[in-house]
Amino acid sequence: MRVVAAIGGNALLQRGQPLTAEAQRANVRIAAKALAEIIRARHQLIVTHGNGPQVGLLALQGAAYKPDEAYPLDVLGAETEGMIGYLIEQELENALGHAYPVATLLTQVIVDARDPGFAAPTKFVGPIYSQSEAEARARAAGWRIAPDGDSWRRVVASPKPVKIPDLGVLQILLDHGVTVISAGGGGIPVVQRDDGSLIGVEAVIDKDAVSAFLAREIKADALLLLTDVAAIYRDFGSATAQPIASLTPAEGRALQLPAGSMGPKLTAACDFAATGCTAGIGRLSDALHILEGRAGTQIRQQGAG
Amino acid sequence: MRVVAAIGGNALLQRGQPLTAEAQRANVRIAAKALAEIIRARHQLIVTHGNGPQVGLLALQGAAYKPDEAYPLDVLGAETEGMIGYLIEQELENALGHAYPVATLLTQVIVDARDPGFAAPTKFVGPIYSQSEAEARARAAGWRIAPDGDSWRRVVASPKPVKIPDLGVLQILLDHGVTVISAGGGGIPVVQRDDGSLIGVEAVIDKDAVSAFLAREIKADALLLLTDVAAIYRDFGSATAQPIASLTPAEGRALQLPAGSMGPKLTAACDFAATGCTAGIGRLSDALHILEGRAGTQIRQQGAG
Repeated sequence: MRVVAAIGGNALLQRGQPLTAEAQRANVRIAAKALAEIIRARHQLIVTHGNGPQVGLLALQGAAYKPDEAYPLDVLGAETEGMIGYLIEQELENALGHAYPVATLLTQVIVDARDPGFAAPTKFVGPIYSQSEAEARARAAGWRIAPDGDSWRRVVASPKPVKIPDLGVLQILLDHGVTVISAGGGGIPVVQRDDGSLIGVEAVIDKDAVSAFLAREIKADALLLLTDVAAIYRDFGSATAQPIASLTPAEGRALQLPAGSMGPKLTAACDFAATGCTAGIGRLSDALHILEGRAGTQIRQQGAG
Repeated sequence: MRVVAAIGGNALLQRGQPLTAEAQRANVRIAAKALAEIIRARHQLIVTHGNGPQVGLLALQGAAYKPDEAYPLDVLGAETEGMIGYLIEQELENALGHAYPVATLLTQVIVDARDPGFAAPTKFVGPIYSQSEAEARARAAGWRIAPDGDSWRRVVASPKPVKIPDLGVLQILLDHGVTVISAGGGGIPVVQRDDGSLIGVEAVIDKDAVSAFLAREIKADALLLLTDVAAIYRDFGSATAQPIASLTPAEGRALQLPAGSMGPKLTAACDFAATGCTAGIGRLSDALHILEGRAGTQIRQQGAG
């Protein structure tokens, strides 16, 4: 099977952990073990990943050094594709004993310059702040901010993916048995100008949305959205919480999930499952079992799969 | 022909220019026009590039934000492969009207943990300082520093490339007509442990050395080392300075070039030309003419080419 596996930000960095290279590498090593099982089972694999904490960190580092020379989010996104892609590639190759080729492909993703996401930023990036500190930083750096639970964070535009120019390159590598790390951090956000040329924009595309889009475009058989929670739950957080084994896209869309939870993953999974293929949501360490329908929540049309 | 073209740091950022995203993009756009001519002439092209100023900047940004959580040079190198690779890829695709595929491949390069370069750092990274400021920063951050002309800069280990694990992936892409940006910043420096696994090291591999190594390994027909000077000169800087049209590897090795000048390029060119192929050194804007033997300095064995 051809599989797109999306690794959530929580799998790369647990909340409250310092954003050091060592902490990220240790988390990536655990993720790599789970992904290696899919490759050893002879599936074609594309790995995507989040970059929320990392892109925020790079922005803060730049602002701490020379605030007037801060880099735009497309360039910072490209930096995170390099940094995170490298860590995943190296740990995945090590987990596989260098017996299978793995490559990291820098990936631009075209978005629509008229996407409503640009007017209403919703994507959290960087660390959490108190309300007063967030407001001070917003004034100083021109950030948009929003509450994230009890804290405040910077929010940036998160437009929808429209086209992935490197799809043909990705296809070549998959056809030759190469596992590809691609569209990291949602991909590098670019828009197409009237003359057809591309230019970066200030945005961070949602990683789950781009993973579902990429899975459709590359004609994947399965999409795995991997996180640190075992499944979608009914009544999550209550005493009667129950994991849901399977959902149709229609049932998934009808579920009311609390904000900041599995909502974006379920939306992306439903979008992909509407093509007649299967999406799975669950714990990273269960990745192969989710792919085999033995763990997590399966989202597929009735009779499909 | 299969061509490896190495873009010097001076072509990405002129001395004294601020290291903003805008300045780099403007320089990359000029480089892209020259490289596009090689692709339009139907040659297979691999683009490599330097990262000295950029990797130094990222280290400074990290130190300015949280000095205790500074990232090691392998991770910073991976970030620069993302950042610079993105800018080159986008501008090259735009220069080509998106009529030819271009991909950026994250590239680890294995070095020998016993390389003498680790004991005697020589590679300049980051901005220039006065001697007293450089000494203060060296004390605070544990840097090694050295004089660079009238100024002082941080120096890091620059071990020799030994193996490029992604060579097979690169070959696949070239065979399918994809122009590949690879081994940026000399590649991400890694060493192989006793169990065969790879791990990053604190180093910056010389971009010219890795370009010559990559050109040999990928069986390139030509290596272009592109900078902002038109050729190797006899008596460079004097009134009698004369550009040299061609040199054998033996003649090249016998030339005494002033330190910090074309020395590393000439060494890399002689190493590659010793395989019987041709290396060219010259101005980026002359890239295609250098490849065709009509500009720059050609380095090849007598009777070769």
